[in-house]
Amino acid sequence: MAEVLPNYLCERWQLGIGKGTVLLDPVRGDALVRVGASGLDLHAGFTHAREQGGASLRALTYRERGALLAAAVKVLKANRDAYFEIATANSGTVKSDSSIDIDGAIFTLGYYAKLGDGMGDSRLIVDGPATPLGKDASFQSRHVLVPTPGVALLINAFNFPAWGLWEKAAPALLSGVPIIIKPATATAWLAQRMVRDVVEAGIFPAGALSVVCGESSALLAELQSFDVVSFTGSAQTAAVIRSHPSVVTRFVRSNIEADSLNSALLLPGTKRDDEAFSLLVREVAREITVKSGQKCTAIRRIFVPSELYAEAAEAISSLLGKATVGDPRNETVRMGSLVSRAQQADVQRGLDLLRTQTTLLHDAASHALIDADPQVAACMGPTLLGAPAADEADRVHDTEVFGPVATLMPYRSLHHALALVRRGNGSLVTSLYGSDSGALATVAPELAATNGRVHVVSPDVASSHTGHGNVMPMSVHGGPGRAGGGEELGGVRALYFYHRRAAIQASTAVLAALPSTGGHGA
Amino acid sequence: MAEVLPNYLCERWQLGIGKGTVLLDPVRGDALVRVGASGLDLHAGFTHAREQGGASLRALTYRERGALLAAAVKVLKANRDAYFEIATANSGTVKSDSSIDIDGAIFTLGYYAKLGDGMGDSRLIVDGPATPLGKDASFQSRHVLVPTPGVALLINAFNFPAWGLWEKAAPALLSGVPIIIKPATATAWLAQRMVRDVVEAGIFPAGALSVVCGESSALLAELQSFDVVSFTGSAQTAAVIRSHPSVVTRFVRSNIEADSLNSALLLPGTKRDDEAFSLLVREVAREITVKSGQKCTAIRRIFVPSELYAEAAEAISSLLGKATVGDPRNETVRMGSLVSRAQQADVQRGLDLLRTQTTLLHDAASHALIDADPQVAACMGPTLLGAPAADEADRVHDTEVFGPVATLMPYRSLHHALALVRRGNGSLVTSLYGSDSGALATVAPELAATNGRVHVVSPDVASSHTGHGNVMPMSVHGGPGRAGGGEELGGVRALYFYHRRAAIQASTAVLAALPSTGGHGA
Repeated sequence: MAEVLPNYLCERWQLGIGKGTVLLDPVRGDALVRVGASGLDLHAGFTHAREQGGASLRALTYRERGALLAAAVKVLKANRDAYFEIATANSGTVKSDSSIDIDGAIFTLGYYAKLGDGMGDSRLIVDGPATPLGKDASFQSRHVLVPTPGVALLINAFNFPAWGLWEKAAPALLSGVPIIIKPATATAWLAQRMVRDVVEAGIFPAGALSVVCGESSALLAELQSFDVVSFTGSAQTAAVIRSHPSVVTRFVRSNIEADSLNSALLLPGTKRDDEAFSLLVREVAREITVKSGQKCTAIRRIFVPSELYAEAAEAISSLLGKATVGDPRNETVRMGSLVSRAQQADVQRGLDLLRTQTTLLHDAASHALIDADPQVAACMGPTLLGAPAADEADRVHDTEVFGPVATLMPYRSLHHALALVRRGNGSLVTSLYGSDSGALATVAPELAATNGRVHVVSPDVASSHTGHGNVMPMSVHGGPGRAGGGEELGGVRALYFYHRRAAIQASTAVLAALPSTGGHGA
Repeated sequence: MAEVLPNYLCERWQLGIGKGTVLLDPVRGDALVRVGASGLDLHAGFTHAREQGGASLRALTYRERGALLAAAVKVLKANRDAYFEIATANSGTVKSDSSIDIDGAIFTLGYYAKLGDGMGDSRLIVDGPATPLGKDASFQSRHVLVPTPGVALLINAFNFPAWGLWEKAAPALLSGVPIIIKPATATAWLAQRMVRDVVEAGIFPAGALSVVCGESSALLAELQSFDVVSFTGSAQTAAVIRSHPSVVTRFVRSNIEADSLNSALLLPGTKRDDEAFSLLVREVAREITVKSGQKCTAIRRIFVPSELYAEAAEAISSLLGKATVGDPRNETVRMGSLVSRAQQADVQRGLDLLRTQTTLLHDAASHALIDADPQVAACMGPTLLGAPAADEADRVHDTEVFGPVATLMPYRSLHHALALVRRGNGSLVTSLYGSDSGALATVAPELAATNGRVHVVSPDVASSHTGHGNVMPMSVHGGPGRAGGGEELGGVRALYFYHRRAAIQASTAVLAALPSTGGHGA
């Protein structure tokens, strides 16, 4: 029987009772390892983290905590090869896709290590200048951010077991808040292994880092008033979290990233020969195929001027046609598999739903699988759908198919295009393609109201832009409405969620004596 | 039968169907006016506000919106006498207490008018500097805040019908977000009258300002993804809002201020003759009596070094003994009435509960009512309770009695005192009294983790500090945990709730062409 991965709680590696859940190779179907968290004393684990871990972390300065993150980066780099092996086996991803997860995790953790170093020897963040509260300046108000005296429960999605872990963990730990990590069960192996390596290196103080693998719906019940929960996953689970008694009656602060129907928009007036057209086509094809479309930021809806609809359909389909699909161990393969057969079935159901309101522009069935058995492997070729009547295609605007599927739509005017983007009801990211800086700068803020990020691609950044779907730690990640309303990353902004803002009203002498830091950073 | 106050929705004054709710004079028991919102077409009202009001407001710059607020200030100032008359009749407050509400509202609105003027001719807020995303600086990330394209539902508490309205309305309108105001029913008259005066002056564009009085549980169901709801009131109603399907499944952003067991803390080592002792005594007595303790920020728990417990009890009781209670129309009266007999009964129930774990240090019964019939008036003298065994008095730390009641407790050490403050599980404000700037500056950040505001009173600001319970627009108002987790005011920070933050990733040329503002302000 497959090895059981232990959980780490109360500074001890602990096995759950029962047989747990088996993690599978999504290409070959082999059993890999098992996870389970039944019967653990969660209350003791949360209390230990909150009290021991919290006190130890808060005693450190931002610079000291940054140094701990830097030490963790070293450990992860040293074990990088093992992580790629686990990713191939458990996520079915090709090397470049595994790299987005693993190297993305290491890069993000390193970024916060450096940010912490720049924040200096302080234990609080000063927020803005002091402001006089009366006619004279003897009594003033100054705002500070201090770490919340609780624990952070970090619940991750299956598609980024490495990056999803560290993009949440880094800001929490840098803030001085202990973490309890709950990886998605299907791909928990990589997350558990990374935590194991970092724990065994003895970097963080006792109680700072815990991991609970497998189903454990009891975690939420442990949350107290100063704790926070950060979640990435389905809108359905998000609703469970938001309406959970702990969150509702103990006012536990939550950050949620649910689902998102991200858009790509080609500016009106673009011609077939313009470089902006090619930039959109290339980016769309990349977003559909990378990680087999299993990115919360992937392009799901593509809007082009109606006169370019047919040409865009042809150009994107042509690129998609080159995609090779199958076992990621074969070096000619560019698209590995989805995370599981269950996920594959889910994508197929979504695709069937979209097909009722769309035409098929590029068919996944045209891709024969390489070194993979269609009866076993969760592999799936790319699909491009078309909705010539974009306004009527309701499902395209409200159904997130979490796989290699996107829909092309024509628009009549900029006004029409912006209205169509907004039909997504709040998204993580919309990318915008064009050549006229003035026009791009006018449209971008219009998109900002309903997107957490606006990614503008113009010919001058053809080779330097960071990609529609790549989440950079310098920019906020999250989006309003359907996307969950949360906000992660964005440099120091990521730390705000783990801090409490307070106004300190005092005499100038008291304010001058406050321990402080050099300010915000960026 | 008492006059019925109409609601304002879809640019029309509309009466609800049915008899509505009668508003009473809490001192004399007279019927004053009636309110009701049954049968209104709320969906049409929300849609009109969202579409017409939102578009018109967002077309204006911050400076232009600030000018609208300034025009509203003029209207409110011109009608100030009428507001005091309504407050006396409907809230039962003495003139100085009515002033906290009415003049506080005008001051806060004026503050945001001025802030808007300083924000200049822009329609978005730039958040921090641009940050390079790659090795060269050709592609960068810049964060902006843009107004949410929805409506703000503002649900207020009964104790501040004027200030509660405008401290929420000013930041929302300045942000470019149309508002629908739902005043607390018991004191809706003053809010409705202020809105009426401003509407009749024709200051704001159509759809910017609506008011719905009386019971209307259907309001929440109208909220959509880009709408926001800001609520002040009971923890019970707060839980209803947080778990409402609109909030849970449409990710409506909510700001909640629920209840709070605020503290006053005298630093260890203080002596009976120190001015800090007198400053605490004076502030505590003021907080218990002002507005008859019906302030969400009022001091409920007082912590003094154990050796000063008896002397603090005597000094506070002595000041409370001077309070005159009764009809606010009598000029010798310093404490008017509670808002209603129902509220008085509620306070009495809470007091009875606290009495099971405390001793009585100053008895409300020692205050005979002036010009008021105890069988009719909701008047109530001040009560000081004592809990010599502070750790055991659970109810004192978890029951907010919303009236002229506070509990004095001794502590053994600073560590003990901080632990007791934290027993409130998150508060709006704790005030700290002492003479040593260094000691005050060390303790204040400790309190910041569990309080939205820390108010430090030292002898050098004896006459210039703004008061424990007064909410200044320059400082954030809100608190973690039990206090609801919300954040209002705090200068420009109040605008964030009504904005969406987005990262715009683009070439330096595009970022340079973005419409911008001078920056944050404070």
